[in-house]
Amino acid sequence: MCDIIATYQVYGRPGTFDKKAEGIALGLTIGSWTDLPLLEQEQLKKHKGKVTSINEFYDDEHPNRYGEVRAEISISYPTVNFSNDLPAILTTVFGKLSLDGEVKLLDLQFDNSYLTNFPGPRFGIDGIRNTINVYNRPLTMSIFKGVIGRDIEFLKEQLNQQALGGVDLVKDDEILFDNALTPFSERIIQGKKVLQNVFEQTGHRTLYAVNLSGKTFALRDKARKAKELGADALLFNVHTYGLDVLQALAEDDEIALPLMAHPAFSGAFISSSLYGVSTALLLGKLIRTAGADFSLFPSPYGSVALERNQAIGVSAFLKEENGLKKSFPVPSAGIHPGLVPQLYDDFGIDSIINAGGGVHGHPEGAAGGGRAFRQALSAVIAGQTLSEAVEEHAELRTAISLWGGK
Amino acid sequence: MCDIIATYQVYGRPGTFDKKAEGIALGLTIGSWTDLPLLEQEQLKKHKGKVTSINEFYDDEHPNRYGEVRAEISISYPTVNFSNDLPAILTTVFGKLSLDGEVKLLDLQFDNSYLTNFPGPRFGIDGIRNTINVYNRPLTMSIFKGVIGRDIEFLKEQLNQQALGGVDLVKDDEILFDNALTPFSERIIQGKKVLQNVFEQTGHRTLYAVNLSGKTFALRDKARKAKELGADALLFNVHTYGLDVLQALAEDDEIALPLMAHPAFSGAFISSSLYGVSTALLLGKLIRTAGADFSLFPSPYGSVALERNQAIGVSAFLKEENGLKKSFPVPSAGIHPGLVPQLYDDFGIDSIINAGGGVHGHPEGAAGGGRAFRQALSAVIAGQTLSEAVEEHAELRTAISLWGGK
Repeated sequence: MCDIIATYQVYGRPGTFDKKAEGIALGLTIGSWTDLPLLEQEQLKKHKGKVTSINEFYDDEHPNRYGEVRAEISISYPTVNFSNDLPAILTTVFGKLSLDGEVKLLDLQFDNSYLTNFPGPRFGIDGIRNTINVYNRPLTMSIFKGVIGRDIEFLKEQLNQQALGGVDLVKDDEILFDNALTPFSERIIQGKKVLQNVFEQTGHRTLYAVNLSGKTFALRDKARKAKELGADALLFNVHTYGLDVLQALAEDDEIALPLMAHPAFSGAFISSSLYGVSTALLLGKLIRTAGADFSLFPSPYGSVALERNQAIGVSAFLKEENGLKKSFPVPSAGIHPGLVPQLYDDFGIDSIINAGGGVHGHPEGAAGGGRAFRQALSAVIAGQTLSEAVEEHAELRTAISLWGGK
Repeated sequence: MCDIIATYQVYGRPGTFDKKAEGIALGLTIGSWTDLPLLEQEQLKKHKGKVTSINEFYDDEHPNRYGEVRAEISISYPTVNFSNDLPAILTTVFGKLSLDGEVKLLDLQFDNSYLTNFPGPRFGIDGIRNTINVYNRPLTMSIFKGVIGRDIEFLKEQLNQQALGGVDLVKDDEILFDNALTPFSERIIQGKKVLQNVFEQTGHRTLYAVNLSGKTFALRDKARKAKELGADALLFNVHTYGLDVLQALAEDDEIALPLMAHPAFSGAFISSSLYGVSTALLLGKLIRTAGADFSLFPSPYGSVALERNQAIGVSAFLKEENGLKKSFPVPSAGIHPGLVPQLYDDFGIDSIINAGGGVHGHPEGAAGGGRAFRQALSAVIAGQTLSEAVEEHAELRTAISLWGGK
């Protein structure tokens, strides 16, 4: 017997939350209680949801319309009520409730023993570090840009430049699907050759995450094919498929590739302060539980930005101790080398610094941009300021004068 | 060559939307344009997103914070940019954009020729009517209640009572998953016996939609098994799986069962007025495109309620002429017999009146509740008021005095 505890944010008049919470606890489990005969109560007891806490907040920023206040209520759901899969859990704890006015799902607490029903990341932070043999710094990543309608030669050259800059990972543009100009298999095969070539030139090994796309029931075969072709990692737009599809990819021993969860479409669930699912729960806890080795999310510093505390909350859930392997937080969007000290401060050594424009927009191209990031990171790890580091590194100096940072 | 046109709601200062829209159209397709050499422009032209309309609204109810106004912008995306599946389409038109501030996806317009890439409902309204041989009225449906922790005998008796009341369909509780007390296969087998027995007693045929649940990659086999066991229809919590999973179920010729899409968890996407996806697009157009024969959604009249214009928008998309078969709108939650005239007025003859408490809470039980609904429907179809009809029908009289209606 164990429970999952769901915490919700709701609004209402002070003192009305007991009734509201009890209504949810019963409505999402056995339906009714006080009017049941004692014998039936005895039978159904182990299936009954229970209110575990109610906290009312009076000093909230949210306008107290109609004298309402904000509250966080927690309800425990017996796991015996559902099958051990995320669709069943989400349907139970936030199925019809998601449609019931101003209610947001803030958190789900799983017992560590219950989490053994889920794969978590196959590689995790340690496994990825072992693969690329980098232990003493955050990793760096960059992104293909402007690749729609381009041919394989264009992609190869972009990949080559990015790898020459010394980034650890390169990911596909999430809107590049399987297509005639740059087919999935061809991207893997050609990408591998480019990266092997860079490795032979420079001794630096870059991994390439190819976008796994297409119909759901074709994904496993396609991912297995990718593995056979020697792919390094898979990018996956999980929120347009479903968390359980990510889990299936993570659990498949014939795939066994690092999985990178892209946040595309997740804004539809997480952006409202009143509805949907909290950012930390979705992009942190659930993405990790389902098996992503990497979780991308908007950094607090770009034009597409999360609030800083939300971004840090995502990272905390990706790395908390819970028996599952840990996932790399990958704050993204609007990142340039001048932000490296702040990102290191926010997300720590076990994080990935991911840039698009901040790599490609460097006056010396993607290779120069990648080098500037690596230089900024080396400085931060060595306890230098960027102002000190620019004295030694030309590419970083160029980047800082273009984008700022100190 | 064809395009999908996406319409978004955004906020901003008057006169700034041209730039914003152009940024989206480029950012979600080829990335840049004016700085490209002419030859590359020529090559990339067929991949370029285009702004097709911008409408600013000055008389809006939304507070004009910081002098902002609401606008609806439409952008056409060449379908050559993505594979013909909903995850690719949603990632393109609302992937990273979903995370970019106050932006809501209101609509997607597909050419009818492009819609041939999608299954739509296998049976549709006409096919379901043929199956149950009812043509001249809305259908009625009821829901199992309080079934968590109960055994198969309890479910059988509830099903029996509901069928005796003359409802056309009975659906599983969406939070009843595969479980030891009432396993999926057993529910189908035993349910079939109960309904056959009622048919032999009364001549009335009720269909039972069993909840298809579990891991994504096991669903097709499980659904095929359901078909073999003689299931009538499948209930599916599509929003915790993904639209493309629904599509795979709809396309599978070995399943070939009517599919009922439950709106559980959809509130996380559709509830905010600022973010996410419009209710009509998600629960109407996309659910139908992906292949649901029935789409459940909150009626405008219960405690869990949609705004009336949203609910009618859902229904309109489920039934518009576009080459796909039509899906039954199933307004749900808070429905009692007194609402039948209003529901008929809102959703027309091709709709389903679906009740839980309004059937089970009838003083003469679910059988009496079902009869009251059928009586209300007969009255409405015959042009009678309920006040007139209660003179002839005892169960309806009881229902109206309990819940109201005229």
